[in-house]
Amino acid sequence: MDSPAPRHKPLANQNVTVDLDRRQRCGFPEVVYGEGKSDDAVAAVFDELLARGEPALATRISAAQAETLLTRLPGARYNPVARTLRRNPAGAEPAGGRGRAAVVSAGSTDLPVAEEARETLNWMGVDVTMVQDVGVAGPHRLPERVAEIVDSDAVVVVAGMEGALPSVVGGYVPCPVIGVPTSVGYGANFQGLSALLSMLNSCASNVTVVNIDAGFKGGYLAGLIATRVADARAAGEEARDA
Amino acid sequence: MDSPAPRHKPLANQNVTVDLDRRQRCGFPEVVYGEGKSDDAVAAVFDELLARGEPALATRISAAQAETLLTRLPGARYNPVARTLRRNPAGAEPAGGRGRAAVVSAGSTDLPVAEEARETLNWMGVDVTMVQDVGVAGPHRLPERVAEIVDSDAVVVVAGMEGALPSVVGGYVPCPVIGVPTSVGYGANFQGLSALLSMLNSCASNVTVVNIDAGFKGGYLAGLIATRVADARAAGEEARDA
Amino acid sequence: MDSPAPRHKPLANQNVTVDLDRRQRCGFPEVVYGEGKSDDAVAAVFDELLARGEPALATRISAAQAETLLTRLPGARYNPVARTLRRNPAGAEPAGGRGRAAVVSAGSTDLPVAEEARETLNWMGVDVTMVQDVGVAGPHRLPERVAEIVDSDAVVVVAGMEGALPSVVGGYVPCPVIGVPTSVGYGANFQGLSALLSMLNSCASNVTVVNIDAGFKGGYLAGLIATRVADARAAGEEARDA
Amino acid sequence: MDSPAPRHKPLANQNVTVDLDRRQRCGFPEVVYGEGKSDDAVAAVFDELLARGEPALATRISAAQAETLLTRLPGARYNPVARTLRRNPAGAEPAGGRGRAAVVSAGSTDLPVAEEARETLNWMGVDVTMVQDVGVAGPHRLPERVAEIVDSDAVVVVAGMEGALPSVVGGYVPCPVIGVPTSVGYGANFQGLSALLSMLNSCASNVTVVNIDAGFKGGYLAGLIATRVADARAAGEEARDA
Amino acid sequence: MDSPAPRHKPLANQNVTVDLDRRQRCGFPEVVYGEGKSDDAVAAVFDELLARGEPALATRISAAQAETLLTRLPGARYNPVARTLRRNPAGAEPAGGRGRAAVVSAGSTDLPVAEEARETLNWMGVDVTMVQDVGVAGPHRLPERVAEIVDSDAVVVVAGMEGALPSVVGGYVPCPVIGVPTSVGYGANFQGLSALLSMLNSCASNVTVVNIDAGFKGGYLAGLIATRVADARAAGEEARDA
Amino acid sequence: MDSPAPRHKPLANQNVTVDLDRRQRCGFPEVVYGEGKSDDAVAAVFDELLARGEPALATRISAAQAETLLTRLPGARYNPVARTLRRNPAGAEPAGGRGRAAVVSAGSTDLPVAEEARETLNWMGVDVTMVQDVGVAGPHRLPERVAEIVDSDAVVVVAGMEGALPSVVGGYVPCPVIGVPTSVGYGANFQGLSALLSMLNSCASNVTVVNIDAGFKGGYLAGLIATRVADARAAGEEARDA
Amino acid sequence: MDSPAPRHKPLANQNVTVDLDRRQRCGFPEVVYGEGKSDDAVAAVFDELLARGEPALATRISAAQAETLLTRLPGARYNPVARTLRRNPAGAEPAGGRGRAAVVSAGSTDLPVAEEARETLNWMGVDVTMVQDVGVAGPHRLPERVAEIVDSDAVVVVAGMEGALPSVVGGYVPCPVIGVPTSVGYGANFQGLSALLSMLNSCASNVTVVNIDAGFKGGYLAGLIATRVADARAAGEEARDA
Amino acid sequence: MDSPAPRHKPLANQNVTVDLDRRQRCGFPEVVYGEGKSDDAVAAVFDELLARGEPALATRISAAQAETLLTRLPGARYNPVARTLRRNPAGAEPAGGRGRAAVVSAGSTDLPVAEEARETLNWMGVDVTMVQDVGVAGPHRLPERVAEIVDSDAVVVVAGMEGALPSVVGGYVPCPVIGVPTSVGYGANFQGLSALLSMLNSCASNVTVVNIDAGFKGGYLAGLIATRVADARAAGEEARDA
Repeated sequence: MDSPAPRHKPLANQNVTVDLDRRQRCGFPEVVYGEGKSDDAVAAVFDELLARGEPALATRISAAQAETLLTRLPGARYNPVARTLRRNPAGAEPAGGRGRAAVVSAGSTDLPVAEEARETLNWMGVDVTMVQDVGVAGPHRLPERVAEIVDSDAVVVVAGMEGALPSVVGGYVPCPVIGVPTSVGYGANFQGLSALLSMLNSCASNVTVVNIDAGFKGGYLAGLIATRVADARAAGEEARDA
Repeated sequence: MDSPAPRHKPLANQNVTVDLDRRQRCGFPEVVYGEGKSDDAVAAVFDELLARGEPALATRISAAQAETLLTRLPGARYNPVARTLRRNPAGAEPAGGRGRAAVVSAGSTDLPVAEEARETLNWMGVDVTMVQDVGVAGPHRLPERVAEIVDSDAVVVVAGMEGALPSVVGGYVPCPVIGVPTSVGYGANFQGLSALLSMLNSCASNVTVVNIDAGFKGGYLAGLIATRVADARAAGEEARDA
Repeated sequence: MDSPAPRHKPLANQNVTVDLDRRQRCGFPEVVYGEGKSDDAVAAVFDELLARGEPALATRISAAQAETLLTRLPGARYNPVARTLRRNPAGAEPAGGRGRAAVVSAGSTDLPVAEEARETLNWMGVDVTMVQDVGVAGPHRLPERVAEIVDSDAVVVVAGMEGALPSVVGGYVPCPVIGVPTSVGYGANFQGLSALLSMLNSCASNVTVVNIDAGFKGGYLAGLIATRVADARAAGEEARDA
Repeated sequence: MDSPAPRHKPLANQNVTVDLDRRQRCGFPEVVYGEGKSDDAVAAVFDELLARGEPALATRISAAQAETLLTRLPGARYNPVARTLRRNPAGAEPAGGRGRAAVVSAGSTDLPVAEEARETLNWMGVDVTMVQDVGVAGPHRLPERVAEIVDSDAVVVVAGMEGALPSVVGGYVPCPVIGVPTSVGYGANFQGLSALLSMLNSCASNVTVVNIDAGFKGGYLAGLIATRVADARAAGEEARDA
Repeated sequence: MDSPAPRHKPLANQNVTVDLDRRQRCGFPEVVYGEGKSDDAVAAVFDELLARGEPALATRISAAQAETLLTRLPGARYNPVARTLRRNPAGAEPAGGRGRAAVVSAGSTDLPVAEEARETLNWMGVDVTMVQDVGVAGPHRLPERVAEIVDSDAVVVVAGMEGALPSVVGGYVPCPVIGVPTSVGYGANFQGLSALLSMLNSCASNVTVVNIDAGFKGGYLAGLIATRVADARAAGEEARDA
Repeated sequence: MDSPAPRHKPLANQNVTVDLDRRQRCGFPEVVYGEGKSDDAVAAVFDELLARGEPALATRISAAQAETLLTRLPGARYNPVARTLRRNPAGAEPAGGRGRAAVVSAGSTDLPVAEEARETLNWMGVDVTMVQDVGVAGPHRLPERVAEIVDSDAVVVVAGMEGALPSVVGGYVPCPVIGVPTSVGYGANFQGLSALLSMLNSCASNVTVVNIDAGFKGGYLAGLIATRVADARAAGEEARDA
Repeated sequence: MDSPAPRHKPLANQNVTVDLDRRQRCGFPEVVYGEGKSDDAVAAVFDELLARGEPALATRISAAQAETLLTRLPGARYNPVARTLRRNPAGAEPAGGRGRAAVVSAGSTDLPVAEEARETLNWMGVDVTMVQDVGVAGPHRLPERVAEIVDSDAVVVVAGMEGALPSVVGGYVPCPVIGVPTSVGYGANFQGLSALLSMLNSCASNVTVVNIDAGFKGGYLAGLIATRVADARAAGEEARDA
Repeated sequence: MDSPAPRHKPLANQNVTVDLDRRQRCGFPEVVYGEGKSDDAVAAVFDELLARGEPALATRISAAQAETLLTRLPGARYNPVARTLRRNPAGAEPAGGRGRAAVVSAGSTDLPVAEEARETLNWMGVDVTMVQDVGVAGPHRLPERVAEIVDSDAVVVVAGMEGALPSVVGGYVPCPVIGVPTSVGYGANFQGLSALLSMLNSCASNVTVVNIDAGFKGGYLAGLIATRVADARAAGEEARDA
């Protein structure tokens, strides 16, 4: 099990190692989970990725962390609702166009998680449709907006409390629905357990689930599907061409 | 704290006591919870109620219990789906007409609980509309049938798995919705916990909850509301008359 | 699924949408859940409702939020115990008289939840009887006050710790009892789980349950029942009249 | 820590050891927990105790176990409701008179646990008052019978479902109340968890708790208190006498 | 909310309704969840689907159910490990070729769930690679077989006990990984809770989760992705062609 | 159920009612649970009790609360470890001598709960032996001190972490052992759940349990037993005398 | 990651693969977990191991499985208490002498788990001391037998109910203590959760824990330690010799 | 049970007792758990141990505690990541060489727990290899470093989130693996429950588990094994010599 060329690079900050062949192995470069990370650790990864021409994404970056990091990382952009930090090599939002995804959220307090999913999808180059505040208690709200999402390659559905929205969305769209339970609620919500169990028990066959408040993972899964579909179409066009 | 007249009557079966003034105190006579009760105990209560001209209802009566009890209690009727045993003093179904309630269920496996609710409502003299198999994953099913339930005084909604149906029904009807979570499902359903938590966390303001598989209690609450509304209307008519 | 006339109005604050036909669909206008909402969001809904002549209610408004909102919303009134903010179109408490409800609480620390229920009932126009500090460990306290609540159309019972009070109240009154478990307690109370499970397992047939600390929902359910009964009586009087 | 004389005696059945100085150390001889024990193991302890002139008690003895054991242990008596097996050296029920205890139960299905407590108290020589079927949903039932239990040295209260009865009893009697939660119930009862949490969170100061369905332990604790009180009184009489 | 043409057809068995436009809305016809369903109910759906030229799939069919159903449904095939029943209109296995998926399982006792996923994928026309018995405790086993799965459009990973396999697979493949926790294990496994929590907390970004033992849902999600990718490629080829 | 003379007195602070016949009904006056109570409420009860010549005890009084209350309640004494406030009518510690109890604690961090138990016992007039820091991991520590506790009428055993101490103490003493689990620990301790479950499952027959961190209740139960035993002895002496 | 020589051998029974280099990698050959395995699968592994001269061990073999397997596997031996099946190449118990371990159990119902640990240790060639029925409620029992275990290289402690024994043993011995919680108990034991949490929270520093009822794993860990210590001593002797 | 010579010494700080014969009984002196301990208590133990020539270790020492203690305890050294305080009698790091252990951690946020384990091992005189940031999602990372740990006498594996690393490490090394779950993660991690359950259910036979975040205990267990192995080798060398 010898490894002729190093696949990981230990950074100046000794406890962090950048996974150098992540793009090759996984299709996308490494993402920084910011909670509990030092500014040095976050900045080191961002600079390493910039040097390699890769777009950088960090999640769970607090406002306090962002204040420092924005001064250290020119060209980075902070989304205070999503609590994400991003930097593209070219200094601009990526071109998009690698498939279509939708992010649907139940209530306005679910927005931070929905925004984290959106930022992740944008970072992957996926076009995103946002549909907000369509929780199940207002039953006319979702049907009025189904047309905006029905052609997506994947739909991320973000909901707290009883977490019923993914099941309902799942009945309207033919693509995979990635449910993201949120910890929005109180009492017998048990910090998101209620929404999590709901989504795991969804009677809609096309609903799958990620961790509570895991907006990044919800967006990432949707992005993997959307980019794969887009790439397949492009490959089909090329194949026919050849 | 002397009690001049006995309010309870110990039956031949020494461990059971019939609550004699339940009708006066609660509006309806005592109901027998059959699980773990001997045939003697059930029959004794039924006969005591018959002697007092009261309709009798027993729940959680197994098929085996029913076989014996039907021979001992002439005029009784067993519903094998609901697992209920009933007997009316006049030997017939009560007249109905004391308000309107609906029992809505998500899937066909929720039917036993829905039927227990329906039997309870019938026993209370309430007119019942049954709407079955309208779970949220088939989003067109419920709206097509809202007209049948929208004028009810109370709606019992029975659902297992993710238990989302009460929230959706709650958005369509203005009356109280009594959610009855069922233990239908598997895995992370945890014997109905998933549906129970969903309903407790419903974002619909008009949803309240009873115990898992508690079809009787769901029906009873709906019946209390419906009969109270019906009685109020009748009282209004009488008052104006006077 | 065309919708000729818009049923929701996106407010200036883009993430909030007022549900315009809630009154028509549900009988009462939308209520604001204040936790995590910006002042702008709360104020926008209040002003929209005022413009439509509707009474406004917001729950879970912190003292800090209230301080700002009271200056922005002339005529609004804050209840610091209930943490509710209300404003009536006519600038005064509504007339009441739409049915009778009682709010019964076990201990003095349950008062915030009981007050939230009372404010909700008042907002709905229901007459409320408050009965406090009648927990089960002082067994003489409740019987002495049963006469005050026995004629209610619905009783909200607020209790933490072992949550036994709804069962006991349920034995005294013939109407629906809405149990509201509170998170009052410590240790094996598990933030209200103990009281919640107690109420769900109540041996009293007329007890139903809402979420832990859900004073609003408890009051709202009681209000739906009381106003429906009052309206039925009024309709009966009118019907006879016609 | 040398032990000149053996304190335990390994029986023929090699895996069981009778605790010989239990009476001296604890005041009462060893009790056999029958679940999963072989007939040989149970009989060996019974015979050893008989040889030492001690009364024997075994709990959780199934009907099948009892059938065999009654033939092997002449003079033993089986209580099929309590599932207990007892044998007194003199072949008769002990004289009683070592203090007064009461066993109060909520519903008829709680009887097996209540009976186990009663058998244990009788085995200890304590006089027992049984009060059955006084659950909280029939609020007049308990007050009518308080006079029978108020002078007890300890009260065992057995209840399933919401487990509220110990709190209420605790408000009526000045002595310790030992709550025994039972697994009677279904759904959100979670095999007795609901009643257990209720009793642990009792607002009555004099309520303590043992394991779910632990009728033996409930009775044993009450017996320890009652016999200690009785012995103290006797000692007082003797002391004065001396 | 009028519905000019019926979208559901109530079958002879009154409690079951076939969702007629499921194929149009979701891309695939309805699947029967066999647990608790009568033979009549299952057969009715199968016959209705056959009449419409659709392939039928039923899951959770016990051996006893299968015995009867196979005689009633000529051409149906039962997989006793997967507990699935299938019938294709043409009487043969579908052609396949709609994308590539892999089903990876940790231990031999996870096979029933893995087989349920495979049957579902075959029913959807997806080519499947099965990789069995590659749990993490034998760390050389998975790497030796990565080449077989690395080009899949989606990988279903089935694992009980500690449920670590999806995370490890997620590090090797760039496509979405659908984790299916199983209830295989004992003790602190808590019927699959251990594996479920593991997968929800996976540090691999491309892992999403379905319910415990939900082989069907795992397979269905993978199939939705694979067929969508295959269709996109075909569409690309056609587009270029046009 | 008329009540000719008021049994409760509403205080100036409207939400608090002093239970006037608690001494008569329960043997001891009411105790104030300080958490969440206003200074006014605590002071009102203390003053009412002083006026009636009763000793006052308040638990869960924070240092901040104590600072104010000590200035308002002359003669009161605050124990900062136990977080209790007490005041005796005569301005001094009560005479003691009403029975003997021991309070045994496992580790030094369990001391606050042990002290709360001790203060409660002192308030009841019981002589207390404190035995600290004898947790089971130092197996020689407890046996060396058994002689100090073996003659107690009741032993309160306070332990966090694995909560094993009550079982071990239970094997050494013949009297009731009241286990008080504490929330001392971390991780899988789950805020005291570990110790609570241990004590509920104790294999020692004489162990009963109160809520997590419930030092007051542990002490109160022990006090009820000890005073009852002492009173019985005194009554015996008197009876013989008469 | 090419693998020139196969490290696993798929057996005739296609779903089982024998891990051929387990002895080399882990020090001991593969063990069969019998639950849910077919007789063919178990026998195939046993025969493969015999062919390689390795001793075979299978755990969780039911009596029914054993009956068939004993006829198919000449020379195998079944322990009905431990539910283990073993076969040594030479047809006899292995020589032993690779270190010393003790297996200590609390009650007689814990014996099956203790026996599984003992069989595992014997299979590894470790000398085992069994100490039974020394639960903490009989506090004199363990100290009397400490001398038998104090020189062990590792002690396996098996206990259900409150699971306190490992902590106490841990205070007496200097070596690692492997706690094996059992599901023995009832009620708030929650199938072994109580004992598991106790052991995880042990205040003894030398206590580590395995899964509920995991007698094999407890024995295996102890065996790894004991054989490593024995081998080190032997290596020391050899080194000095060289 | 007399004890001629005191085995414990009560310190000036009355609530703390130093366990004087811990070294003799357990092989290592007492360790201070710093959480909630006063500076006086910690310093008293450190000074007592220094006087006896023993190395001192305190865990869970906050930065604030450390600031004071470092001034009071000359020669002590604080590790702010591990939150440990240590002092050796000779003022220097101990010589090491008593066996070899490895501490492997999954992510950089697990480092505090890993460092606590390392400090403990160093305090015991064991040589430690640290391997960090080799979580399972980067599957090439661990195999590249197996050579560094494969000859250890014990491996401590520290991991949060899904806690899969111990199982994977367990497949590579023949020695005992002590899994230390951490509370690193969010949502369905439930403060480390996810990792804890994973490790308890590990399919690797050589994995045992300690409490969540219990770096000390993980290190201590590994140290007990490593020093015992080292001592055995030394004893073997000496034995041969003799």
